Amino acid sequence: MTITLYELAAADPQIRFSPYCWRTRFALAHKGLTPATLPWRFTETERLAFSGQGRVPVLCDGETVVFDSWEIALYLERSYPDRPSLFGGAGGIAHALFVNAWADTTLHPGISGLIVADIFQALRPEDQPYFRASREKLFRRTLEEHVAGRETRVVEWRRTLAPIRTVLHRQPWLGGAAPDYADYIVLGSLQWPRCISRFAMLEDTDPVRDWRDRGFALFDGLGAAAPTVSPRFIDG
Amino acid sequence: MTITLYELAAADPQIRFSPYCWRTRFALAHKGLTPATLPWRFTETERLAFSGQGRVPVLCDGETVVFDSWEIALYLERSYPDRPSLFGGAGGIAHALFVNAWADTTLHPGISGLIVADIFQALRPEDQPYFRASREKLFRRTLEEHVAGRETRVVEWRRTLAPIRTVLHRQPWLGGAAPDYADYIVLGSLQWPRCISRFAMLEDTDPVRDWRDRGFALFDGLGAAAPTVSPRFIDG
Repeated sequence: MTITLYELAAADPQIRFSPYCWRTRFALAHKGLTPATLPWRFTETERLAFSGQGRVPVLCDGETVVFDSWEIALYLERSYPDRPSLFGGAGGIAHALFVNAWADTTLHPGISGLIVADIFQALRPEDQPYFRASREKLFRRTLEEHVAGRETRVVEWRRTLAPIRTVLHRQPWLGGAAPDYADYIVLGSLQWPRCISRFAMLEDTDPVRDWRDRGFALFDGLGAAAPTVSPRFIDG
Repeated sequence: MTITLYELAAADPQIRFSPYCWRTRFALAHKGLTPATLPWRFTETERLAFSGQGRVPVLCDGETVVFDSWEIALYLERSYPDRPSLFGGAGGIAHALFVNAWADTTLHPGISGLIVADIFQALRPEDQPYFRASREKLFRRTLEEHVAGRETRVVEWRRTLAPIRTVLHRQPWLGGAAPDYADYIVLGSLQWPRCISRFAMLEDTDPVRDWRDRGFALFDGLGAAAPTVSPRFIDG
């Protein structure tokens, strides 16, 4: 059965930078599933009309359509129970929702405040007006004002990663002895700036950096091989 | 078999205010266990020498001695497998460690910055010099300087609870349909200021307040009945 995943893409259709779509990509890989991935841009809401809403990720598994990264993870866990578990039981689901909420409410506003102007630069010209207008309405200032001073603000953002460092003192993954969906949630958050920006989010010596790199190496380097706006990919 | 729990106490031995000890109290109640609780003060390190370290909670279950609230929770889950699970499986343990780390690294420094001077006031005179000296060394300023401006800073602290609010949109407890150790971790964090300070941490309309009150009502009102420095208890 064919699995199709609609993913947010930059002007370069190979650059897939949504943290939510990355959660789903890692979850599919964990289940041993390889989707056909389709690039989707912010203004193409009509292309998602079949799903009854207008945001990605959207997963099509045969006749079944699922949207929202959390719902997709629950769907995969329920529909592929014989594959490796994404959550490790009912408590694992309940508590992973906290990790999901923490990433969304704590990590993401900070990341956005560091890289949102880079996102704008990487979009197709026809998607830029929508992106600028919607984000500037939200932030009540220009994208450029929103990211100003990021070299100093990133230090504060790195402090919000403290819970991960504490967990890594006791276990190698948020999932315990092996990675699971809790890891993929935060790996998705970190893949977002890595793909769409050249701004350095993590210090080399940060244990979160080591964990991130181990995570991006999973599944034959699924995360590490992702195309980015970094010169090393654009220039070859 | 007798279970004994050493708990941090204020000058009034009935006032038990350690967030870590409350995690253990709730965990024991979840397992249907009622400990004999012993008040312990900061300077009584020799009374814990039998445990090989100097901090509470310390749990004595027959001949077994366990310290550190996280280790105690794991011990209870392992030793009382036929009682209700604290974690809901291996994934639940792994992900609850993240909630534990989040409370310790994100919630607690903020709470300390709001109420540490109140803690000082509630201690026995003989414990106050140690407490003031150790905390002022850590903060590099006086306790009074550390809590200055708390009426405005509490607004920022309340924002750090955002992940809980997001989780409560989808499920009534951090543990899912029913409370578990993830709830007890954060309930312990909130019991700390409630017992030792009159400072209002939560707004009445905050969904976290409703969740907290439901949590404190569990186990025949174990949390709600805890003696506090509030006038309603001191004055009767």
